[in-house]
Amino acid sequence: MREVAVIGIGQTRVEEQWNKSLRELAGDAALAALRNSGLDQVDAVYVGNMMSGSANLQQHLGAYIADWVGMRYAEGLRIEAACSSGAACFRSAVMAVGSGQVDSVLAVGVEKMTDSPSAEITAELATAADADYEAAQGLSFVAINALIMRRYMFEYGWKKEDFAAFSINAHANAVHNPFARFQEPITLEGYSKAGMVSDPINLMDASATGDGSAAVILVPLEFVKASKGIPLVKVAASAAATDSIAIDQRTDPLWLKAAELSVKKAYAQAGIGPADIDLFELHDAFSIMAALSLEANGFAERGQGPRVANEGDILPNGRIPIATRGGLKARGHPVGATGMYQIVEVIQQLRGEATGTQVENAHIGMAQNIGGSGSNIITHILETV
Amino acid sequence: MREVAVIGIGQTRVEEQWNKSLRELAGDAALAALRNSGLDQVDAVYVGNMMSGSANLQQHLGAYIADWVGMRYAEGLRIEAACSSGAACFRSAVMAVGSGQVDSVLAVGVEKMTDSPSAEITAELATAADADYEAAQGLSFVAINALIMRRYMFEYGWKKEDFAAFSINAHANAVHNPFARFQEPITLEGYSKAGMVSDPINLMDASATGDGSAAVILVPLEFVKASKGIPLVKVAASAAATDSIAIDQRTDPLWLKAAELSVKKAYAQAGIGPADIDLFELHDAFSIMAALSLEANGFAERGQGPRVANEGDILPNGRIPIATRGGLKARGHPVGATGMYQIVEVIQQLRGEATGTQVENAHIGMAQNIGGSGSNIITHILETV
Repeated sequence: MREVAVIGIGQTRVEEQWNKSLRELAGDAALAALRNSGLDQVDAVYVGNMMSGSANLQQHLGAYIADWVGMRYAEGLRIEAACSSGAACFRSAVMAVGSGQVDSVLAVGVEKMTDSPSAEITAELATAADADYEAAQGLSFVAINALIMRRYMFEYGWKKEDFAAFSINAHANAVHNPFARFQEPITLEGYSKAGMVSDPINLMDASATGDGSAAVILVPLEFVKASKGIPLVKVAASAAATDSIAIDQRTDPLWLKAAELSVKKAYAQAGIGPADIDLFELHDAFSIMAALSLEANGFAERGQGPRVANEGDILPNGRIPIATRGGLKARGHPVGATGMYQIVEVIQQLRGEATGTQVENAHIGMAQNIGGSGSNIITHILETV
Repeated sequence: MREVAVIGIGQTRVEEQWNKSLRELAGDAALAALRNSGLDQVDAVYVGNMMSGSANLQQHLGAYIADWVGMRYAEGLRIEAACSSGAACFRSAVMAVGSGQVDSVLAVGVEKMTDSPSAEITAELATAADADYEAAQGLSFVAINALIMRRYMFEYGWKKEDFAAFSINAHANAVHNPFARFQEPITLEGYSKAGMVSDPINLMDASATGDGSAAVILVPLEFVKASKGIPLVKVAASAAATDSIAIDQRTDPLWLKAAELSVKKAYAQAGIGPADIDLFELHDAFSIMAALSLEANGFAERGQGPRVANEGDILPNGRIPIATRGGLKARGHPVGATGMYQIVEVIQQLRGEATGTQVENAHIGMAQNIGGSGSNIITHILETV
């Protein structure tokens, strides 16, 4: 495969954007990425999105966004993998450029969720679960994660407060990110007093949805060279794996098997191991998912994710910085766009543009996006050239 | 790019499948394709689907179908490009194998439409149009095509009956296809007397939706050789282009610009021209689309699509056979699956398995899938090795 470089990044703030339509939102991020790349045309427009068909009554986003950003006639399609739609879109773009079929792709993740009433959003999110064996039983996504967290606390002896460090780190980092939904720090007291959503998950364990879009421009590495003092970033690894959608079908609901499988492939492709990763944008949709992600990717022993967080390893100057721009928790989680935000944030770090939370000497960053409750896990490793 | 072979095909009959769930339907086609290929595992499962999120309350079909067909842990994602989702899925699979990132893909198109009431289906199909500028004005898909057909008849002087030859050919061919929704021939009288849907489009101009799934297995050409007397089929070209979603935005609503652009790329990739195509599975969602497709792909002069049909060129023994297994009109149009049915049918012809409508000496076949009213057009050329 041809090596692939990412030469442009763009994003909008995650918030309730009542004044923007779906296409305006995607257009803002896409045009920012194009400006950042120096290109004004691309061969293909790939869109990562989960729920526009129901939330915005608009599908067919490839052609729709391509036309809106001035790329009518370019190739266009949409990729959906529930909350991992963003990374699935990025991976498809990597393979398209890598294969030689196209020489430039605009990959844009977008989700506009506040047009739908919250009851509908909960139902729409549940389409990522098993319709017959989970959603039809009334299990919402937060409830599925609450079952996992409760079991994890029982198995490994953690208290609820032991998870606070994940949220405190995420919010502390988001203070420095103008694109984050929440730009205020939280305290242990604030965490402990937060309203319960689905016991033991409270508001400070759960990421907030929102409207947002993030975009990148991919081209063959051989076509570009570093310029203007901005480090050039290439895709060192791209890998994906699935697991059952319904958690009751898994032999071990406390282990992200698909993360283990996809990161194993990714480490092999990049020729590195966990110790080489300078920062890790993981999928902290709920604090329990942050813990499980650290474990399955080789940064914590099984059952010891909260320990790593409480020892400070996850801070920007720690052993394995996570959620460096706020993560899903505080930057926000516009579901189909989230994976693309992670890619954009890793690139900010590798370029040295992560003001306020810059990881020193960051040369290799990893992003991992999860669809469903661990049922589709996509890993990318990015590296300065 | 590595060359790509298609070594397995499978399909279900298009019909109202009340006794099958979405996953059972996809599983039937997928397992048939696997059996046909001789493989029992693949690296990745790609699903082409348009509307399962609203029609079946289930998204995340990559992981969902992978698990169902015994491929838990394989990579999985869904591709959506409205009615061209099937071909977009196939193209993504071609690029995945071509890039070297995966060595085998199960690409499955599936749509289960009869679970939704017909009013909802009309609204769901309208999500492929422009939500703001078309759907919100009450324009359904058949109405958009009726506007195009009326204008075409006015510009080029055709009468309604001049389009009958498209439908008569499609139904005559479907008689021999056990997977077709309608396996009865129709007559000119039957065509003329059919109930009007949206003037001038009557029931015999319009394809029928339905439940259906078609699947193929793709691997690198270098990994396989022809065996068992079955000709080996490779992907000679894969190309795509978009146009505006709303037809009022186009300079010429009677010309499929995206077809012209995508087929031009496809012919160049394959190193051939229209005269080399032995059969052409085109997107006859409405008879007007069959006419426009013949023109934009180089098989008829502008405005002369109906003439080519009436002169018999489109019959299985004609100059450019189309809809050889019934087309969208008579095989049926389960929207997100249709593009994969077209690929399967072209391969049946190239293998000499198109009983009853076999095109003699078929070595090069083309499939072209249209999303929206010409806004996303994806072309594949397949060839015997």
